[in-house]
Amino acid sequence: MARRQFVTLTTDIGWAYAAQIKAVFARRAPNASLVDVAHDVPRHAIRPAAFLLAHIAPLFPPGSVHLVVVDPGVGGSRAPVAVETEDGSFFVGPDNGVLGLAVRALGEKRTVRLTPPDRPPTGRRSVTFDGRDVFAPAAARLANGASLTRLGRAHRLHQLVWPRPQLDDRSSRGEVLHVDVFGNAITNLPGDAVPPTAQRLVLRVRNRVVPRVSVRRTYEEIPTGGVALLASSFGLLEIAERNGSAAERLRLAPGDSVSLAWWRPRSGAGK
Amino acid sequence: MARRQFVTLTTDIGWAYAAQIKAVFARRAPNASLVDVAHDVPRHAIRPAAFLLAHIAPLFPPGSVHLVVVDPGVGGSRAPVAVETEDGSFFVGPDNGVLGLAVRALGEKRTVRLTPPDRPPTGRRSVTFDGRDVFAPAAARLANGASLTRLGRAHRLHQLVWPRPQLDDRSSRGEVLHVDVFGNAITNLPGDAVPPTAQRLVLRVRNRVVPRVSVRRTYEEIPTGGVALLASSFGLLEIAERNGSAAERLRLAPGDSVSLAWWRPRSGAGK
Amino acid sequence: MARRQFVTLTTDIGWAYAAQIKAVFARRAPNASLVDVAHDVPRHAIRPAAFLLAHIAPLFPPGSVHLVVVDPGVGGSRAPVAVETEDGSFFVGPDNGVLGLAVRALGEKRTVRLTPPDRPPTGRRSVTFDGRDVFAPAAARLANGASLTRLGRAHRLHQLVWPRPQLDDRSSRGEVLHVDVFGNAITNLPGDAVPPTAQRLVLRVRNRVVPRVSVRRTYEEIPTGGVALLASSFGLLEIAERNGSAAERLRLAPGDSVSLAWWRPRSGAGK
Repeated sequence: MARRQFVTLTTDIGWAYAAQIKAVFARRAPNASLVDVAHDVPRHAIRPAAFLLAHIAPLFPPGSVHLVVVDPGVGGSRAPVAVETEDGSFFVGPDNGVLGLAVRALGEKRTVRLTPPDRPPTGRRSVTFDGRDVFAPAAARLANGASLTRLGRAHRLHQLVWPRPQLDDRSSRGEVLHVDVFGNAITNLPGDAVPPTAQRLVLRVRNRVVPRVSVRRTYEEIPTGGVALLASSFGLLEIAERNGSAAERLRLAPGDSVSLAWWRPRSGAGK
Repeated sequence: MARRQFVTLTTDIGWAYAAQIKAVFARRAPNASLVDVAHDVPRHAIRPAAFLLAHIAPLFPPGSVHLVVVDPGVGGSRAPVAVETEDGSFFVGPDNGVLGLAVRALGEKRTVRLTPPDRPPTGRRSVTFDGRDVFAPAAARLANGASLTRLGRAHRLHQLVWPRPQLDDRSSRGEVLHVDVFGNAITNLPGDAVPPTAQRLVLRVRNRVVPRVSVRRTYEEIPTGGVALLASSFGLLEIAERNGSAAERLRLAPGDSVSLAWWRPRSGAGK
Repeated sequence: MARRQFVTLTTDIGWAYAAQIKAVFARRAPNASLVDVAHDVPRHAIRPAAFLLAHIAPLFPPGSVHLVVVDPGVGGSRAPVAVETEDGSFFVGPDNGVLGLAVRALGEKRTVRLTPPDRPPTGRRSVTFDGRDVFAPAAARLANGASLTRLGRAHRLHQLVWPRPQLDDRSSRGEVLHVDVFGNAITNLPGDAVPPTAQRLVLRVRNRVVPRVSVRRTYEEIPTGGVALLASSFGLLEIAERNGSAAERLRLAPGDSVSLAWWRPRSGAGK
């Protein structure tokens, strides 16, 4: 059996619109293996989608095609693009920044601005659904083995600015990148930002102190009613509650500022 | 490799019940390619489901099997049916009107009332889940190449009455057919119902005037805080808000009346 | 074409985390056929997930691999396990009781405590996501034909205590096991717990009498505004409302006590 060609779908458009994209593949690349990554990423939220894509797409085999439809500017000036990365994978979607982190993680090889297809799936291209009418036909061609350069002309990929966390030996400052389905808030701080010897830890969210915070290893260890910092499975520091939603309790959303400060005893020092 | 046989699943029953349907295929038509269209279409809402099916199913390849479980009358007098359409596709589901628009779009060839299977999947047919116990076994047989006439006896398909929009050169009247995940309300009015030269546009929903309405081409062009009419990707006029839910703001639901009126200057005439 | 190897995914972790699990299969068992059972089972709720798994997994073909991630104790003392059942199927997940009912239904053959993989998917094992880092690699090996005994050492599977319903000829007592997407509450009482001749039926939920209750065969037969008991498609008694959510109206949740009492006329007896 031939090697399977995976095509992942990451969208904010819900299942029914995504089904129209799947129909395009059923017609034009019927042997591709479609993977529903998610169709419920936060609506119109480019940064959380970029974050998720960067942590999910590289786990798929080299050569996979990643179709992304988080596209509030559809029909406007942002370009429809396709990107080939160094490992031979492809990304297809709007050039609004949503592809940037994942492409950077895998290494950009080349990018084209997509030429709309001669035969759009419904016979007539809609200006409000490039996912179905432009991205899916292009992704289907890539899944069938077409080379990127046949899909359009060279284009320079737009990159969002991602603030780097500020880290020193007594504090760190960053922001919330993503809130997961449990209400855990993933930050851009490294999972080991707080040293094991830290004492008197203070967490501030949007400059407000959060009471009863501790550093824990697992969800099970979090004291009931308390909030914990732990190393998430993304390798980043996450703010979590036990059997509850930290995001709801602390009203956390992507973009919120997060700062940590602690007191660190001198190693080996007396007194 | 043999041509893939696609089977689409459109239901309001949620993922866990739908998984039981998938299990039937895994046993009885293991090589079929199942496509989750949606399992969250509005519960018990036949018309929105009929609308979606009519716009999604025809995009799949001819010969596909479309299984539909939006079936509030399960166990009652409505018939379990399968329909073959002119392009060789099949629809399987309850004869409550949900299949009507899609079947009309592809052309009805023949319809049968399904004979319940001799061996139901769990050993005993439940009266409350024909999706698993009657539709899925029938759809699996169709996916395996069985002819429609072997599944039951000839039956006359039930059609819902779909009110036609009223259109003239200064106004149009119709209704909301579907609200999408963004809160955009899709109407039964054509996407170009309002001429580009229209002035002093008035939108009424349930006979109430909606303020600050304009006609736009893309979501990005909608003024913040305003409501716009635009041509949806279904080819129909849609009521939308920018980065927000028009359905929530205007409390729109399928079936709501929508009317438009405008003033149209005489072309070329002076005052 | 070779027989398809099905792998089902039942999780409470949402689509984006589940996608990371799918990526592991795309790399390590690319020809497996993944089935999304659900990624929205109630968060951290072991019993409802155990109930669903026991009613869904046995419907899949013998030899299927069932991966389960409902794992509030991840990183703690509960063991990561894999189970082979008498029909040659496999279950992989946390040993917190979630696998118990399904394994009992199919017959436990042997169980191992999983040895964490040498090469975790992201290069580094996270303590908070065994689904991706331990269960998925093990399930991929099983899907590829590895024998269970190569995945770890013999282990004794944890079983939850499931209270048996109390049944006699005038009453029955049990509890709610699961609330479905419609708001129907599935109990542990048999579907035919109430005899057809029962009169003056009284339903109590959490020891409170529910008014206007009747026994019905289908949802369509339920009087508007009333509550009914009917035989669910699980073969168990369910509490339902017509076109509405019984769970919402009666505030039903898994674990709630349910009792029924009725008066039964003597058959053949006079007044």
